[in-house]
Amino acid sequence: MRPVDHSAPPGQERRRGRRPGGQQTRDALLAAARAEFAEVGFDQARVRSIAAAAGVDPAMVNHWFGGKDGLFLAAMDIPFDPAVVLARVLDGGLEETGERIVRTFLTVWDATGGGPFVALLRSVANHETAARMIREFVSEVLIGRIAAAVSTDQHRLRAALCGSQVVGLGMARYVIRLEPIASAEVDTLVAAIGPTLQRYLTGPLA
Amino acid sequence: MRPVDHSAPPGQERRRGRRPGGQQTRDALLAAARAEFAEVGFDQARVRSIAAAAGVDPAMVNHWFGGKDGLFLAAMDIPFDPAVVLARVLDGGLEETGERIVRTFLTVWDATGGGPFVALLRSVANHETAARMIREFVSEVLIGRIAAAVSTDQHRLRAALCGSQVVGLGMARYVIRLEPIASAEVDTLVAAIGPTLQRYLTGPLA
Repeated sequence: MRPVDHSAPPGQERRRGRRPGGQQTRDALLAAARAEFAEVGFDQARVRSIAAAAGVDPAMVNHWFGGKDGLFLAAMDIPFDPAVVLARVLDGGLEETGERIVRTFLTVWDATGGGPFVALLRSVANHETAARMIREFVSEVLIGRIAAAVSTDQHRLRAALCGSQVVGLGMARYVIRLEPIASAEVDTLVAAIGPTLQRYLTGPLA
Repeated sequence: MRPVDHSAPPGQERRRGRRPGGQQTRDALLAAARAEFAEVGFDQARVRSIAAAAGVDPAMVNHWFGGKDGLFLAAMDIPFDPAVVLARVLDGGLEETGERIVRTFLTVWDATGGGPFVALLRSVANHETAARMIREFVSEVLIGRIAAAVSTDQHRLRAALCGSQVVGLGMARYVIRLEPIASAEVDTLVAAIGPTLQRYLTGPLA
């Protein structure tokens, strides 16, 4: 019962001068993904079933999006892969990780002008399904990775605390545009907020 | 912390059998206030002009809402007066203020079930005018008071940093409902996040 790919033979999309059929496949996958993520959440969504709904081969998900995470990020219009960014941040060891997280977060979102952060927040605020998707993605992919990198107790609480400060920073800088945070130099915010995340990750919590 | 009942004038919450005429005045003021706050922001909105648009005497604003701040909070459906709550928190002096802010924030919003926080965030995310109103209200009323209570340097940055962590906590607990923050005991979060706010208020920032 494997759905047939009517758009283009696999491999053909990699050529230059991509045929409209490839773009159609991608768009059909995005539409099917948004529907499936909204209906069953990030956890339960299955690449196979999204591809079936889009009427394309499941291999097309890897081809276009590199897998379920990438498909999710594209469906949510998130302009970079937080897991990749996070892996880079955590790679340097846990010393000064707090500062690196703040600097990377600001650098990545500042580069977008903040608009996509506002759009993401709007989805989360308006749709319980979007809130659920983000919750599951953050829990599984991001919190999971931070927690795995932290050797202290209460891994998941520590990672979630970091998440809360980082989301609040994004709210203040990009959404509410609260001064002086909105216009502050990255270095100022790194110095002020980095130690907070560092304590959340490796310091005493009580 | 008892949520304020905005449906009755201050001091009259307990009276039964409210007159319909009064309710009409109140509703007209709320509608006019929403329009004026949306058009010119919290800063520039004038009680006199809102009352004129509602076709009622400006004294009715004090009668029903206790003034411009209260009218704004009612127009935004914020179920308590953050300035009053904050004054109580700051009254105790700056020692352990961080913990008191976290405890009070959680107590006040937990009592509402979190729904009004989600609604507030939705307004802010969807309407630049709402974001602007909240920005001005937070800057003038809340940040102003915290900054005035803090004798250290960089008052406004310190207050805004507190705001960013508190907003992020609300996002994690009520909107994204990120575990383990969503279900954590208040004491756990007070112990973990209180020291962050304390450092933002009185500690070294760089």
